[in-house]
Amino acid sequence: LRVLKLTLAYDGTRYVGWQRQANGVSIQALIEEALLPLEGRRLPVAGSGRTDAGVHALGQVASLELTHPISPADLVSALNARLPADVRVLAAEVAADGFHARFSALRKTYAYRLYNAPLADPFERNRSWHVPQRLDIEAMRRAVPSIVGTHDFAALVGSGSDTSRTERTVDRAELRLEGTLLGSLRAAGGGEVLVLTLSGGGFLRHMVRNLVGSLVEIGHGKRSPKWLADLLASRDRRQAGPTAPACGLYLVTVEYGRPRLERGEEVR
Amino acid sequence: LRVLKLTLAYDGTRYVGWQRQANGVSIQALIEEALLPLEGRRLPVAGSGRTDAGVHALGQVASLELTHPISPADLVSALNARLPADVRVLAAEVAADGFHARFSALRKTYAYRLYNAPLADPFERNRSWHVPQRLDIEAMRRAVPSIVGTHDFAALVGSGSDTSRTERTVDRAELRLEGTLLGSLRAAGGGEVLVLTLSGGGFLRHMVRNLVGSLVEIGHGKRSPKWLADLLASRDRRQAGPTAPACGLYLVTVEYGRPRLERGEEVR
Repeated sequence: LRVLKLTLAYDGTRYVGWQRQANGVSIQALIEEALLPLEGRRLPVAGSGRTDAGVHALGQVASLELTHPISPADLVSALNARLPADVRVLAAEVAADGFHARFSALRKTYAYRLYNAPLADPFERNRSWHVPQRLDIEAMRRAVPSIVGTHDFAALVGSGSDTSRTERTVDRAELRLEGTLLGSLRAAGGGEVLVLTLSGGGFLRHMVRNLVGSLVEIGHGKRSPKWLADLLASRDRRQAGPTAPACGLYLVTVEYGRPRLERGEEVR
Repeated sequence: LRVLKLTLAYDGTRYVGWQRQANGVSIQALIEEALLPLEGRRLPVAGSGRTDAGVHALGQVASLELTHPISPADLVSALNARLPADVRVLAAEVAADGFHARFSALRKTYAYRLYNAPLADPFERNRSWHVPQRLDIEAMRRAVPSIVGTHDFAALVGSGSDTSRTERTVDRAELRLEGTLLGSLRAAGGGEVLVLTLSGGGFLRHMVRNLVGSLVEIGHGKRSPKWLADLLASRDRRQAGPTAPACGLYLVTVEYGRPRLERGEEVR
């Protein structure tokens, strides 16, 4: 019995999210079904955390216990041959005994892409949140450092979260401007995309999306940059901005070391 | 009666191409149907040239003659409100009398994106041609200058072309390496994309895709860089490489000045 670690990328547009659900196709179910012919029975596959419906991954991590002696390289090929083209296994490796994609995770990085331009771009569809009104990006940028550190993020937790512990540590937060997808092909610009990148030990349900929704309130001039620190201190979800849409969110990487989190603690 | 010039971007994945066809939805039909409520009758819309099924556009140009006094800005809004999200009108402007998207076109730029990496990338799906075998990019780059100039491109013309005149002028050809779509979000690379950009007075059916297929033969080491000039000189389609898939091709821009092409001449 070997523990295998899989690294996955997926376009979340067509899926109900990572976790198995009755109402549609999940990434977890796709992987488990792709593994069926190998072991002849359903192998439970653990993800590093849930991603919501429509959320994308560039480096989701999953773990499973395998009896079949297939090599990691052949496992990558076998799974990709059975998975749809919008879900790809990027790597497989034998992990240490006891490795668990969720409980062994030390640090995660999420990115959120927001397209700020009067008109929508067909190539940004399902890849970013299109905000047509002109945003005050400098004001948003001034607010970002308030997120870094250990905070009670109760003001940014989504309803339906299955945890009551809302303290988390964000060790990096960065807002930068990038060109649009395929913008490099265009002679004349093609608009800009705001990318918010966050790293930390764990994230609460909708935490990044609620943070982006709140930053956009600042970008619209409805709130001042220093309001974000007040919002966090309030621990009051009703004061936060609306939840930004799922299509702009990407799980970028999951980092591992020795196990740290206790079973039962929610990790996203 | 005003002549209007529209600039359009579209993700061609779901469509049979620019031109109306019996077997599926075309971009031309979508635009004409979106215009219906305005004039109460079908207005013929002319494109700068056909794009094939699955081919994308960042700056396709179309022209039409409108009696309705709507402002260009309102026309953009009205059309976008009726078009699907993968087709967008980027701009509308009143053009000179006699302007015609196809016959007035002076110069076009196409780009072809090729993703060369062992594994497919879900975010490059339908956005580039995935070639898993390692390509000799330097050899491909050495071949590219042979394309520039006025040549008889009979060796690269697709079957079903409706022209017998196969001489065209390519005034710019450039092969460069770029990151993948969303590659900037990843800490560690994420592969590279080869982008071939071509500009010229006009292109034959499948000309860019057959050129890319032939360049890839050079990249595979099946042919030498100098073979490309021999291929053009042969004027023999059977000697060219296979037609590269449509999903990697983008119509980037169409440039206009005074009318130049005669009616009846095929322009792509």
